[in-house]
Amino acid sequence: MYKKPIQFRRNGMRSQTRIDAVMDEIRLKISSRTYLPSHRLPSVRQQARTLQVSVSTVVEAYERLMAEGIILSKPGSGFYVSGPVAPLALAQIGPKLDREVDPLWVSRQALDTDHSTLKPGCGWLPPEWLYETGVRRALRSMAKADSLELVEYATPAGHPELRQLISRRLIHIGIEASPEHIMLTESGTQAIDLICRFLLEAGDTVIVDDPCYFNFHALLKAHRINIVSVPYTPHGPDLEIFQSVLAEHSPRLYITNSGIHNPTGAVLSPVTAHRLLKLVDQTNLVIVEDDIFADFEHTPAPRLAAFDGLNRVIQVSSFSKTISASLRCGYIVAKNEWIENLIDLKIATSFGGGRLAADMVLIALKDSGYRKHMETVRLRLAHEMQKVITQLGALNIHPWLVPQAGIFLWCKLPDGFDAALIARECLKHGVVLAPGNAFSQSLNAQNFLRFNVAQSVDPRIFETLKNVLAQQQNLT
Amino acid sequence: MYKKPIQFRRNGMRSQTRIDAVMDEIRLKISSRTYLPSHRLPSVRQQARTLQVSVSTVVEAYERLMAEGIILSKPGSGFYVSGPVAPLALAQIGPKLDREVDPLWVSRQALDTDHSTLKPGCGWLPPEWLYETGVRRALRSMAKADSLELVEYATPAGHPELRQLISRRLIHIGIEASPEHIMLTESGTQAIDLICRFLLEAGDTVIVDDPCYFNFHALLKAHRINIVSVPYTPHGPDLEIFQSVLAEHSPRLYITNSGIHNPTGAVLSPVTAHRLLKLVDQTNLVIVEDDIFADFEHTPAPRLAAFDGLNRVIQVSSFSKTISASLRCGYIVAKNEWIENLIDLKIATSFGGGRLAADMVLIALKDSGYRKHMETVRLRLAHEMQKVITQLGALNIHPWLVPQAGIFLWCKLPDGFDAALIARECLKHGVVLAPGNAFSQSLNAQNFLRFNVAQSVDPRIFETLKNVLAQQQNLT
Repeated sequence: MYKKPIQFRRNGMRSQTRIDAVMDEIRLKISSRTYLPSHRLPSVRQQARTLQVSVSTVVEAYERLMAEGIILSKPGSGFYVSGPVAPLALAQIGPKLDREVDPLWVSRQALDTDHSTLKPGCGWLPPEWLYETGVRRALRSMAKADSLELVEYATPAGHPELRQLISRRLIHIGIEASPEHIMLTESGTQAIDLICRFLLEAGDTVIVDDPCYFNFHALLKAHRINIVSVPYTPHGPDLEIFQSVLAEHSPRLYITNSGIHNPTGAVLSPVTAHRLLKLVDQTNLVIVEDDIFADFEHTPAPRLAAFDGLNRVIQVSSFSKTISASLRCGYIVAKNEWIENLIDLKIATSFGGGRLAADMVLIALKDSGYRKHMETVRLRLAHEMQKVITQLGALNIHPWLVPQAGIFLWCKLPDGFDAALIARECLKHGVVLAPGNAFSQSLNAQNFLRFNVAQSVDPRIFETLKNVLAQQQNLT
Repeated sequence: MYKKPIQFRRNGMRSQTRIDAVMDEIRLKISSRTYLPSHRLPSVRQQARTLQVSVSTVVEAYERLMAEGIILSKPGSGFYVSGPVAPLALAQIGPKLDREVDPLWVSRQALDTDHSTLKPGCGWLPPEWLYETGVRRALRSMAKADSLELVEYATPAGHPELRQLISRRLIHIGIEASPEHIMLTESGTQAIDLICRFLLEAGDTVIVDDPCYFNFHALLKAHRINIVSVPYTPHGPDLEIFQSVLAEHSPRLYITNSGIHNPTGAVLSPVTAHRLLKLVDQTNLVIVEDDIFADFEHTPAPRLAAFDGLNRVIQVSSFSKTISASLRCGYIVAKNEWIENLIDLKIATSFGGGRLAADMVLIALKDSGYRKHMETVRLRLAHEMQKVITQLGALNIHPWLVPQAGIFLWCKLPDGFDAALIARECLKHGVVLAPGNAFSQSLNAQNFLRFNVAQSVDPRIFETLKNVLAQQQNLT
């Protein structure tokens, strides 16, 4: 699927390193599952042509790989990959990325970091911004709950009362969905994962936005999906390019954010939503709208699921960004026959879920405290956003657009700076940034950074950034 | 993969129903993903031979399917499946099963049932047997916890202190594993699912025990795996058959229970464990030991992971059967390089996990209350097991073996009775049973039932069973 030019090490014997390089190349193709077991390798001549090495180099490499038991020869037929399929190492799928822009590295960094680190690149709110009081109240309330809630499995579709409440909440964004259209999951990510299992085969093509939430890339890699990205404009995906991707790739799925777009903060316009749905009318494309930032909106933007009436659009969301990431609870909204099959898949692969997390989310959502909490959060975010724009502006870093709401600013560095390099340097000073290419399948965002305004309160972030920019300027 | 004889409806025009039957057969193959998009259909003649219908019937069926847009013809080349891959309907994969023995139906029934139903077929303890006091204490303690625990994501491998404690617990069953060999998951099922994603490709072969925990079948179906079963003896798998399966199918994985086997209650003997590991020594087989019933043992049975030293054996477990199913927390124990890749897969597909469930499990496990709780549970189970054996004996239903410990009895009905039929009748009277073939890939357990002794306390269960047996006897 991906092509990587073969590289030779600089030291050691020339022919020796060439043989090693050929061997490495083949090992990589096996470990990335490009070559599957029993796959016939290219002939010696063909391989020599492709890798631009001599025939004798390939012969020697093949012989050594045979000695290692990695490939085997069938006389008169050629060379084959032996052994079982290689374990799926996500890090080895696709082009080799600098770790600063590798989606998995960025996620692990954000999850792993100790709390002395400053994390303007992080994708969620700081702990003190979440609904801690609601979680504490829910815990106290649950300590007195019925024993079923405390120790039993959840019902297959998940807590009926929470699904009822989600159904009522969906009305505010124009989506008519009864509780039967809703299935609870353990997270928004699990929700998308189940949909991928339901709809996709390895090798299928999926459209994502360029840029998009980076874990979409990692998730689709785990399904061995061909990812095609379409540039995101301030009003939604670029429809001209979307149309040509439809024609060229027959994609099965389009995964996007509804409401406030991650990382750009853009918002789908009604006309783009309408045209997009018209564009896909004659196709089999299914659309997944990840609506995780819905409660950050001041006024609701158009939802594809609302326009489409849950025909080809599936909504997913969770409460990790607003109530707590420690309580695992997400959901899928889709047409009934799909929900039924998704429930089967959920039971088969995670045996449903627990009652506790859904119960606690329900308690946290049910009184007026949550509404007030989110009002405060929205006002605070608007305030911090202004401040961060000003502070970044002083460093000649400017947002691509000023978002109506949300937690992210998608910012362009001054010309000539490489965001991955800046991120690497800032990390040495304890500041974790999110460089643009982690979000960009086409790697076209090398001078962008995503800032989380709620995680950008500490002035040391801007000092560090200023120093690193100055240092980089001097180097060039 | 599976072959199902074509069936003709009894009513209506003969040729009409044959055409319909051929169309149904092809639709089923498409929806079960046996025929993938762009798959070339068998030629008209070939199809006619296979389905034993006339050529003109197939011609008509193909033409109607073309009119429906389900298949298309390429002149000079043949007929092809059109459209995208069908959504994955687990219920449609494999042979059509009576719903009483369909793993997914059995799971949903157990999860769905209201609490007035009696559930001797259920796979877990009744709520009042679980560690409710521990869960309540953990909830009260968490209500005062640090805000990070309440609202933040977990670290990639999961709570370090819980992994430390699991590492110490593993020593009791002879497994040496440091916290770096352990990754927390959201459930035991998710643990196995991640291992399947890591090691398997669709079409790979996996060995399960016959009988085995029925959700293994559903989970492997979701991965579109070729399941081969090996009979389970009172001392472990039948090694002669295991060996021939190894030779014939080159299986990639063997999934089994360690400790007390589900559903039989058998226990692996040291000599079988040793011979099994010797048998697979020259193969690439990986073994997954699901150790979910470890805390029910009076004395620990041999573990393959202990004998093997985490070389090719992976252990998985959770706390759903002992502390609470409402708290989702499981784990994987495996060699370090595998854990690293499994963490990547976990983040990509569920974005790690929450802190709350792991924190609560840690609190519940940490004091002496849990140890005392499990002592009581073990004694109660031993007592109930004796009682259930006696009560079933009076109905001429006898256990295949008397288990050393655990919650299950694998029981044989008197000759001539069909467990699925008995289960269907008992359900009408509010008693949910678990018929043998739900556990048997070979469908060789049609006169077995699995009883959960903790769920078989109510005398109405045995009355209902007695009446249904008598009624069936009279019918034959």
